[in-house]
Amino acid sequence: MTPIRLGVLGLGRAFTLMVPTFTGDTRVKLVAAFDPREGARAAFEQTFGGTAQTSSEAVCADPAVEWVYVATPHQMHVDHVVTAARHGKHVLVEKPLALSLEDCTRMIETCEAAGTQLIVGHSHSFNAPVLLTRRLIASGRWGAVKLVHAMQYTDFLYRPRRPEELDTAQGGGVAYSQAAHQMDIIRLLAGGEVRSVRAFTGRWDAARPTEGAYTALLTFANGAVANATYNGYGHYDSDALMDGVGEMGRPKLPDAHRQTRARLRAVTNEAAEAALKAERNFGGSLYAPPAADAPDACQHFGPVLVSCERGDLRLTPRGVMVYDDQGQHFEPAQVPAVPRAEVIDELWAVGREGQAPLHGGRWSRATVEVCLALLESARADTDIMLRHQIPAPA
Amino acid sequence: MTPIRLGVLGLGRAFTLMVPTFTGDTRVKLVAAFDPREGARAAFEQTFGGTAQTSSEAVCADPAVEWVYVATPHQMHVDHVVTAARHGKHVLVEKPLALSLEDCTRMIETCEAAGTQLIVGHSHSFNAPVLLTRRLIASGRWGAVKLVHAMQYTDFLYRPRRPEELDTAQGGGVAYSQAAHQMDIIRLLAGGEVRSVRAFTGRWDAARPTEGAYTALLTFANGAVANATYNGYGHYDSDALMDGVGEMGRPKLPDAHRQTRARLRAVTNEAAEAALKAERNFGGSLYAPPAADAPDACQHFGPVLVSCERGDLRLTPRGVMVYDDQGQHFEPAQVPAVPRAEVIDELWAVGREGQAPLHGGRWSRATVEVCLALLESARADTDIMLRHQIPAPA
Ligand SMILES: NC(=O)c1ccc[n+]([C@@H]2O[C@H](COP(=O)([O-])OP(=O)(O)OC[C@H]3O[C@@H](n4cnc5c(N)ncnc54)[C@H](O)[C@@H]3O)[C@@H](O)[C@H]2O)c1
Ligand SMILES: NC(=O)c1ccc[n+]([C@@H]2O[C@H](COP(=O)([O-])OP(=O)(O)OC[C@H]3O[C@@H](n4cnc5c(N)ncnc54)[C@H](O)[C@@H]3O)[C@@H](O)[C@H]2O)c1
Repeated sequence: MTPIRLGVLGLGRAFTLMVPTFTGDTRVKLVAAFDPREGARAAFEQTFGGTAQTSSEAVCADPAVEWVYVATPHQMHVDHVVTAARHGKHVLVEKPLALSLEDCTRMIETCEAAGTQLIVGHSHSFNAPVLLTRRLIASGRWGAVKLVHAMQYTDFLYRPRRPEELDTAQGGGVAYSQAAHQMDIIRLLAGGEVRSVRAFTGRWDAARPTEGAYTALLTFANGAVANATYNGYGHYDSDALMDGVGEMGRPKLPDAHRQTRARLRAVTNEAAEAALKAERNFGGSLYAPPAADAPDACQHFGPVLVSCERGDLRLTPRGVMVYDDQGQHFEPAQVPAVPRAEVIDELWAVGREGQAPLHGGRWSRATVEVCLALLESARADTDIMLRHQIPAPA
Repeated sequence: MTPIRLGVLGLGRAFTLMVPTFTGDTRVKLVAAFDPREGARAAFEQTFGGTAQTSSEAVCADPAVEWVYVATPHQMHVDHVVTAARHGKHVLVEKPLALSLEDCTRMIETCEAAGTQLIVGHSHSFNAPVLLTRRLIASGRWGAVKLVHAMQYTDFLYRPRRPEELDTAQGGGVAYSQAAHQMDIIRLLAGGEVRSVRAFTGRWDAARPTEGAYTALLTFANGAVANATYNGYGHYDSDALMDGVGEMGRPKLPDAHRQTRARLRAVTNEAAEAALKAERNFGGSLYAPPAADAPDACQHFGPVLVSCERGDLRLTPRGVMVYDDQGQHFEPAQVPAVPRAEVIDELWAVGREGQAPLHGGRWSRATVEVCLALLESARADTDIMLRHQIPAPA
């Protein structure tokens, strides 16, 4: 079968993280792209041999493009997805789907009206150990899921950022960027239909005035409960609990967070910080091409522990450790030969095999609803009841 | 100075865990005891040379006794503390102080009227790493506490139990027995004054029909938030995150939980289970005297991570790992030469040096209020606001 022909909008950080996937997975071919950064467009032509278009619209209109991968800043997702769909293109859009439920709905409805597919990703709920855990739960061997416990301590807030990434009103902070991963994982494992959210958010650094942390309790329609914490303030690193493997599946230096903070201290203002972010991305002057070797562990999003009626499942970067009445044993996950190949698995299943997406529009709108509820619960100081949830696809 | 002369009520599990303390710490001397179990009374006379009395009242009335250590089942604490106080005796009472706030208040007021002291313990908030963390926080070096994250996964529900320990109405389940430790630790680290509690409880095993799990969010008057989870269903063991050291400061077998469940499977009914519990205690036929060597690590109550404005403090069985802008470093705790000597430290400070207790009656009533709020929040499905909180003593 012929590779899926992708057009890309936004050659920034998200795209940079997908470069190993796009170069390593022969099921996709990058045929066009647009980014306002000229260096990125030049590097795109050179690396992928595709067409550097002069606008987002031109990528969407390009007849060579089958699917558009939207990897622009959050607030642009809605316009870019709608444009792609109106040009009859299927869409793979980065998480979070959008910044409001209204925008999510508009995207879903526009794609449906156009008869185009919509997949939201990459998110870390694509990771092989998450999908393996889903299968283990579905086997029924350990009974129903009762409690999911997830935590992630990172340096998120001190990585170089665009100004809007530090402004909650524009989609900044961990509730939009990071809960989009963690809540997607939790929903996938606990059945999908969140009933209520109680949360508190942390804004602990006046120099980075957005949410850098949250802690939350979720209840599900099926009776499961989830406890989720995210702290992006860059001190403790929960990768220590993931066998020292980082989010990308590679060994993590124990002082990575200190280095992140030290790097940021050298930056003097907003514009310089945004420039630093851009220059580290694909086609920038500080861009480091991906290592040639594939990582020997899966990508992950921190410690996740699923307590079922008759056993606990602990996600690791290489599979799932099972604790039950028999003792403990390890269920290995297949480490993908190409990083994030799981995204292309889903793209292929939907685009070439006619299957329904796991991470479709309605699924991902429900995840956005949870992310928004984190902020709203903290603001209103009460439980938030949800209304747009759907069960996890079988 | 002369040792503090203790009279003991209840020579069961709690007492058994204190035997190494009482035999190893020369600041205390056990002079009298009562337990309905005859074998325990005989062993008491033999081991400690004190008087085996014929009733609890007789221990309280014994003029040789200065302090009464109340280690009877939860529901008896109130009567035993009141009796001791009316006999003019100071009291060290096991956690939880009592099963209702009214009982707590009665105990506090009776002791005050009698001019006797009241200390509640042992609880794991006495542990040296907890007290060290308190001092590190008080130094102000890392700023205010913003988030405390605590979890504990044990085999609590499958250890042999008396029937009332599996009946919530009689004080059974983890909200009374285990939250009394975890909430006490959290309160001590986060300032003490809990504002609100939101919690869910788990009853996942119809054969053990009480709460075996809870997960909770607490807010504090000073703005700190705490996230606490306890799962006593005996699969995953969070001691793996504590350097493989168990609650008692000794190396933990990785399959300890499986063994606990296997042991319980051999027991056929309630009475046999209660008998098994009793026979493993001091003076019972299955009693194993404590190991002669002192453990080389402190006792602990599972992973606790304190995020301050400028750094994270992680409790370990041997001290506190600090993560801050400088990187990470370890602050060692003094491992007590005698296990739980920290309890005797406080007893001595109060009894011989005239200091105010850290774990006094009002402090511990506030911890009971949090434990009750866990159950009430789960039942009422909403936040519970607290009214009996006091700040952590300086
Ligand atoms: N899944 C992941 O692991 C992951 C990682 C990072 C970012 N993301 C997501 O990717 C999206 C982008 O974030 P980022 O960190 O890559 O930001 P970024 O700033 O690094 O990249 C955005 C890119 O979009 C380009 N751009 C701006 N306007 C454009 C337009 N009109 N048309 C085309 N390109 C345009 C910018 O020049 C930039 O190169 C966000 O939604 C974010 O949540 C996902
Ligand atoms: N701090 C800790 O580590 C710890 C550990 C275990 C128990 N505890 C606490 O200790 C208390 C007792 O629990 P346990 O697990 O030791 O129970 P247990 O059943 O093992 O011990 C209770 C003992 O009290 C005796 N007893 C019953 N009625 C009595 C009476 N009227 N007068 C004197 N003794 C009487 C029983 O015979 C038994 O030996 C509880 O409040 C519990 O929360 C604390």
